[in-house]
Amino acid sequence: MTAQAGRIMAREIAEQPAVLRRLLGEGMPRIRAVAEEIAARAPRFVLLTARGTSDNAALYAKYLLEIRLGRPCGLTSMSVTTAYNAPQDLTDVLVITVSQSGGSPDLVASTRAAREAGAITLAVTNNPDSPLAAVSEYHIGILAGPERALPATKTYTASLLALYLFVEALGGSDGAARAKELPALAEEILARGAEIRNLAARYRFAERMVITSRGYGYPTAKEAALKLMETSYIPALSYSGADLLHGPLAMVDNVSPVIAIVTEGRGGEALRPVLERLADRGADLMVVGPAAAVAGASAGFVLPADGVPEELQPVLEILPLQLLAHEVTIARGQDPDAPRSLAKVTETR
Amino acid sequence: MTAQAGRIMAREIAEQPAVLRRLLGEGMPRIRAVAEEIAARAPRFVLLTARGTSDNAALYAKYLLEIRLGRPCGLTSMSVTTAYNAPQDLTDVLVITVSQSGGSPDLVASTRAAREAGAITLAVTNNPDSPLAAVSEYHIGILAGPERALPATKTYTASLLALYLFVEALGGSDGAARAKELPALAEEILARGAEIRNLAARYRFAERMVITSRGYGYPTAKEAALKLMETSYIPALSYSGADLLHGPLAMVDNVSPVIAIVTEGRGGEALRPVLERLADRGADLMVVGPAAAVAGASAGFVLPADGVPEELQPVLEILPLQLLAHEVTIARGQDPDAPRSLAKVTETR
Repeated sequence: MTAQAGRIMAREIAEQPAVLRRLLGEGMPRIRAVAEEIAARAPRFVLLTARGTSDNAALYAKYLLEIRLGRPCGLTSMSVTTAYNAPQDLTDVLVITVSQSGGSPDLVASTRAAREAGAITLAVTNNPDSPLAAVSEYHIGILAGPERALPATKTYTASLLALYLFVEALGGSDGAARAKELPALAEEILARGAEIRNLAARYRFAERMVITSRGYGYPTAKEAALKLMETSYIPALSYSGADLLHGPLAMVDNVSPVIAIVTEGRGGEALRPVLERLADRGADLMVVGPAAAVAGASAGFVLPADGVPEELQPVLEILPLQLLAHEVTIARGQDPDAPRSLAKVTETR
Repeated sequence: MTAQAGRIMAREIAEQPAVLRRLLGEGMPRIRAVAEEIAARAPRFVLLTARGTSDNAALYAKYLLEIRLGRPCGLTSMSVTTAYNAPQDLTDVLVITVSQSGGSPDLVASTRAAREAGAITLAVTNNPDSPLAAVSEYHIGILAGPERALPATKTYTASLLALYLFVEALGGSDGAARAKELPALAEEILARGAEIRNLAARYRFAERMVITSRGYGYPTAKEAALKLMETSYIPALSYSGADLLHGPLAMVDNVSPVIAIVTEGRGGEALRPVLERLADRGADLMVVGPAAAVAGASAGFVLPADGVPEELQPVLEILPLQLLAHEVTIARGQDPDAPRSLAKVTETR
């Protein structure tokens, strides 16, 4: 490892406020136009297709579509198309494919098959010239600029915000006004590196980790686990708070650290009984969330979210956890820019 | 720990051939009748609602519905209803809720809300007198008899088979004929306890584990991970083979054992490149699947699946993994009948 370790990932993490600002400005006209055209076709169901980090963004969109628009959703099991070639009837179905590179052959094949099966297809990608954008009827660019670090960071938050703005526009409302505080709050969070370095010291020797949340924060828990695993190689298990009580809780003991993402609002309230059960078990708990929730935990990061609606907090919640993955990895003597065995465009088929 | 440790779980594992036989016999008339009534109402989309072990059975049903019937599906994010009270339009939607006990308040609330939102509701449960069955328009019993061990075993395979028989009947075909070899093959597998005890010795000191599969076998990977975690407390991470390549592969090294479930058919074929990548990384690999796949691995369990269609192999694949969870737990000096911190009916809200 050299002094350069993690420089690329750190730079891309730092770019996020600018990326969010760009989406809220120059990104809006296209998002609005695409949403209007799709709204006119009145899709009944939505299927979301993605892998890895983008799959966590897709899960966030599922909550938005169901909670904000009452539209039933599913996440695509891609092998249904790519391994089993099963024909489906997708009339009245909107298929949203989320992919940073827009290049993975299985995503392209699955989206092409969906379009042939009658679906309205929308690609949300960082590469508008990608094969995925080409096979999709509509596409929205997330305007994050080239991403070079293997662990995706700025394309995750950009995907979240683009999906939020799209879903709001699909429902006829102006998401950009509600999201306007995000870039400044993101800057404020990213300036708190010293706090993160203190937190990172806690996890330097962790052999495993459990990450939990509920509702809108659940995709944050999954993405934080993925980020920690692919950079630091710490096995990080993520569960919705309710699922944690159905079995995996047995695995949590007083030497397994738990990270809880407490979204201020109904998701955070629904998580409260889970946090109480964890406290009863003597779990070492770190909370990312409001000050009151952090005060009851062993450690935490207070998230400034004044005036940010619950459904937008995930765009901020992941930031300290991206920094944490970066710092823990460096503390363990590894290079977050170069996880072993990963390629930037994963060619699954 | 006493000599009695794991007796209840062992007895329920052993009951599975009889349970499968019962479903194929006395279970069929009701399954056929319910499927015919629902088929007549021609649902366009299916949502599956469940938690824990039942959620893995629901995921299996998602593959069946999509591959065998071309019907788009989604898995319910329960907090949408229970935490956010979001109203949805579920006209033409079939909502299938899978629950051993039929007693968890969130499942009951979510199913009631779905029915009020216009869905056709079907409960698949081991307790036909449960609140869940009462709020559902239709219900199918899985006829597994009372389950007393905390780790669910016989209710998992019974749910798989009941869902299979229902989906086939929904498509107008006779699943019972295709499934008729299952009880005898299950007996044959469960008689191979000595092999499992040898395999268990490999994992006695494992600090973590990765379990992977693709297609129909993916729910088996998830259920095996849950079973190992809730009994032995070994953190077991499960990924579809394709998702494993998008990040978590970085975590696999030559001291992290990997278990792969190779379903004979297209799922197993799609997993082959993943197994090659794992071999390149020097992973310790155990395979549950056909003899040829086991021969290429460090260890394995050859699954007798002659004449069993790919979509039915999951009913058999989980059996050696249930036995493995039981044996590893006893080898580690713990009692699989009494995992710490779990209750049989998990009351999540």
